[in-house]
Amino acid sequence: MSNLFGQNLGVINLGLDGFADVIEAEGGAAARVDWRPPAGGPDAAAALAKLAGNPAVEAANQQAFDRYLASQPVLEGIGIAGETLPGMGPRHILHAGPPIEWERMAAPVKGAVVGAILIEGWADTEDAALELAAGGEITFEPCHHFDAVGPMAGIISPSMPVVVVRDAVSGARTYSNLNEGLGKVLRYGAYSGEVLDRLRWIGGTLAPVISKALEKTGGIELKPLMAQAMHMGDEGHNRNVAGSVMFLKTIIAAALNSDSSREDVAASADFIANNILFFLNISMAACKCMLNAADGVEGSSMATVMARNGVEFGLRISGLGDRWFTAAVEPADGLFFAGYSRDDAAPDLGDSAITETAGIGGFAMAAAPAIVQFVGGTSATAINATNEMTHVTIGRNPAFTIPSLDFVGSPAGIDARMVVATNTPPVINTGIAHKEAGIGQIGAGITHAPMECFEKAVIALADTIK
Amino acid sequence: MSNLFGQNLGVINLGLDGFADVIEAEGGAAARVDWRPPAGGPDAAAALAKLAGNPAVEAANQQAFDRYLASQPVLEGIGIAGETLPGMGPRHILHAGPPIEWERMAAPVKGAVVGAILIEGWADTEDAALELAAGGEITFEPCHHFDAVGPMAGIISPSMPVVVVRDAVSGARTYSNLNEGLGKVLRYGAYSGEVLDRLRWIGGTLAPVISKALEKTGGIELKPLMAQAMHMGDEGHNRNVAGSVMFLKTIIAAALNSDSSREDVAASADFIANNILFFLNISMAACKCMLNAADGVEGSSMATVMARNGVEFGLRISGLGDRWFTAAVEPADGLFFAGYSRDDAAPDLGDSAITETAGIGGFAMAAAPAIVQFVGGTSATAINATNEMTHVTIGRNPAFTIPSLDFVGSPAGIDARMVVATNTPPVINTGIAHKEAGIGQIGAGITHAPMECFEKAVIALADTIK
Repeated sequence: MSNLFGQNLGVINLGLDGFADVIEAEGGAAARVDWRPPAGGPDAAAALAKLAGNPAVEAANQQAFDRYLASQPVLEGIGIAGETLPGMGPRHILHAGPPIEWERMAAPVKGAVVGAILIEGWADTEDAALELAAGGEITFEPCHHFDAVGPMAGIISPSMPVVVVRDAVSGARTYSNLNEGLGKVLRYGAYSGEVLDRLRWIGGTLAPVISKALEKTGGIELKPLMAQAMHMGDEGHNRNVAGSVMFLKTIIAAALNSDSSREDVAASADFIANNILFFLNISMAACKCMLNAADGVEGSSMATVMARNGVEFGLRISGLGDRWFTAAVEPADGLFFAGYSRDDAAPDLGDSAITETAGIGGFAMAAAPAIVQFVGGTSATAINATNEMTHVTIGRNPAFTIPSLDFVGSPAGIDARMVVATNTPPVINTGIAHKEAGIGQIGAGITHAPMECFEKAVIALADTIK
Repeated sequence: MSNLFGQNLGVINLGLDGFADVIEAEGGAAARVDWRPPAGGPDAAAALAKLAGNPAVEAANQQAFDRYLASQPVLEGIGIAGETLPGMGPRHILHAGPPIEWERMAAPVKGAVVGAILIEGWADTEDAALELAAGGEITFEPCHHFDAVGPMAGIISPSMPVVVVRDAVSGARTYSNLNEGLGKVLRYGAYSGEVLDRLRWIGGTLAPVISKALEKTGGIELKPLMAQAMHMGDEGHNRNVAGSVMFLKTIIAAALNSDSSREDVAASADFIANNILFFLNISMAACKCMLNAADGVEGSSMATVMARNGVEFGLRISGLGDRWFTAAVEPADGLFFAGYSRDDAAPDLGDSAITETAGIGGFAMAAAPAIVQFVGGTSATAINATNEMTHVTIGRNPAFTIPSLDFVGSPAGIDARMVVATNTPPVINTGIAHKEAGIGQIGAGITHAPMECFEKAVIALADTIK
């Protein structure tokens, strides 16, 4: 032993940096390995012991992941939610995240519901809308229950237009609403006159222009468009600058060759040209499509949904289908617009984490170094986020390559086992809503999924495995 | 001495890697410093001795660089070359690079001249065009003599449309032709029927559509557009994917609000949407604008022009105004399209090195990791190119920031002294033309400016300094 300490010691430090700091301060050398003990209590540990390396789970995950990779989302057209979403009733309002009743909804979601009720003409005033919402006549359900996804509040009511994405492999369809732009918008809980006027214009002008253009182009394959946007500095969640303008370029000539009026095409082109998030919702529907393909593989611990309703974070995994595993959400932190701070922030919100679930967004941040202007950090933050997510993912998606990492695929297919075993919560890029209804977006940042959902999912999955 | 070698030696290796390789092979440690002896013979060394650290040259370079930084290129409109370029005569044909007579022109340039003569209607057949070109009736002059720039062959004849860029600071104007797209195009020496038809369509349809749109938008500030494209993975020379689509998005609504016909706008939108180099020529005119601002500062060794005519490379520096310093060009190397090799390549060609002269293109390659798919190399190639160019540049351009390098400005303002003193030739991204007329582009790659031009310029500048 004394012989050992007489030598020039090389130290490998697992986990907490404090130990390596001390050794280096004393002139020693320490290689740092980012290691954390597994998350969760004895139940999670027992579940992990059952699931880790389990051949049935490994095979199930590979199957789910292969289905996700094979999926070919195609933007097929634009529909009206109430006519297009199978099972949506005339008094349905869909929202982001896992199920939640009106009383418990976050303020921005309530604001967006008020806006939707006014748009639908079910009430004429804010007070009447609030009364109606509380009265039990309206059915609130998650977008995900209808194969749909909506950013932030994610409100979809029957008259709203939706993008329709079809999986060329299975024929299954997924949906999202149309992006309204930045600032005061329904999805951030604003419902003033300008917000509702814009929504009416989107339904009455923009949606038909895009719909007719898509009839001319035929379906648009979305993975090549998403991949190209990633080569142009988008990560596909908080940054959709390239995707939005590439989408405009893809449809503009077709829009002009359709029977839409010249004025409507000009106004639509102007709207998309000035909405750097326009492609987000389309990309989200494509992500939902790829993940639906991976859903329902018995024994698989691959995440198929991560979604927030502003109160709870909800996770679904392939092997347990429609079950939600939930935990409380925390307020998002990041860069705030002038005049706002973390104290003003609503808890984390939106179905847009479907992008991270599908291996883009925060998982592809290395493709989007410019995003750190918007969410904070340095270019190393972006690279590290992508690299860290390789610890919790089943593989890489060769369709979504990252130029700055020499065209390696983005890490994809979150394995709930690996999240718990490495105590590494999935990274999520996000917008930040004001905690009160009616105000809108106040910032953007980087957040993480709560570990508790993954622990619950792993425990539940272990119960199904012999 | 024996004491010295008894110690554990640390070696700093300047220059040739071979020495460090040997030391490391023997188990030693060597820090590698990329150092090369200065270029040129005794005349260049004497000139450098006079110019290095010379306060007059330092002050002149700072002034030239500051003027370059302050320049504000604005896309003002579209003109017809013969009516717009001051001094251009009715039988002028402008070409890329330094002056060259017909007999010595490279084959692709001759091919493009034939095409221009046919377009102008000065001859009806290829043979008649060749006879006319050789007959002395046509005046050949560099684009640069008319404050214009043209990629590859760079041919501008009187009836061709040109983009007009105005410096908001000085009011001075610069020009370029309109980009024809990829493949068989005049600038690569092709002049078949389809090439000429496209040029006629560009003059008759596309140019008026853009011109009328610009009347609606008013002038478009180009530096913000170029900066945004660099945040979207363009380096602004070989990769203009983002710039081109961002330009389309900037003018499309205005084009629809002008009196251009719907069909013409649709065709123009389709053309720009499918031409990932459309923005190159506009960006080149902007670079020429910024560098003209830096021109004519007595004593300055800052490069204001780098241009190739396929036979000679030409350099101009601020302190010596209109003088050309030339050297032979070498064939470009890079990635070749299927069926072609280096043996088929024409020597380096085009005014597009104005982008590198202005601190974008190869100098900003770190912003465009995806470009290595097109020119060869890895993402490290791109980062290294940008970093190496800091050795030969006066400063950084804060208008052109690079996200992956934490938003540091692109290295800009090539100091001919530093090129010679460090023996570091400026990097240039380039397209590669076939060495015979009529074939077109066969590849793309990374090349370097010949040192000889810089040695000549430094010697000439030293002659002007007391």
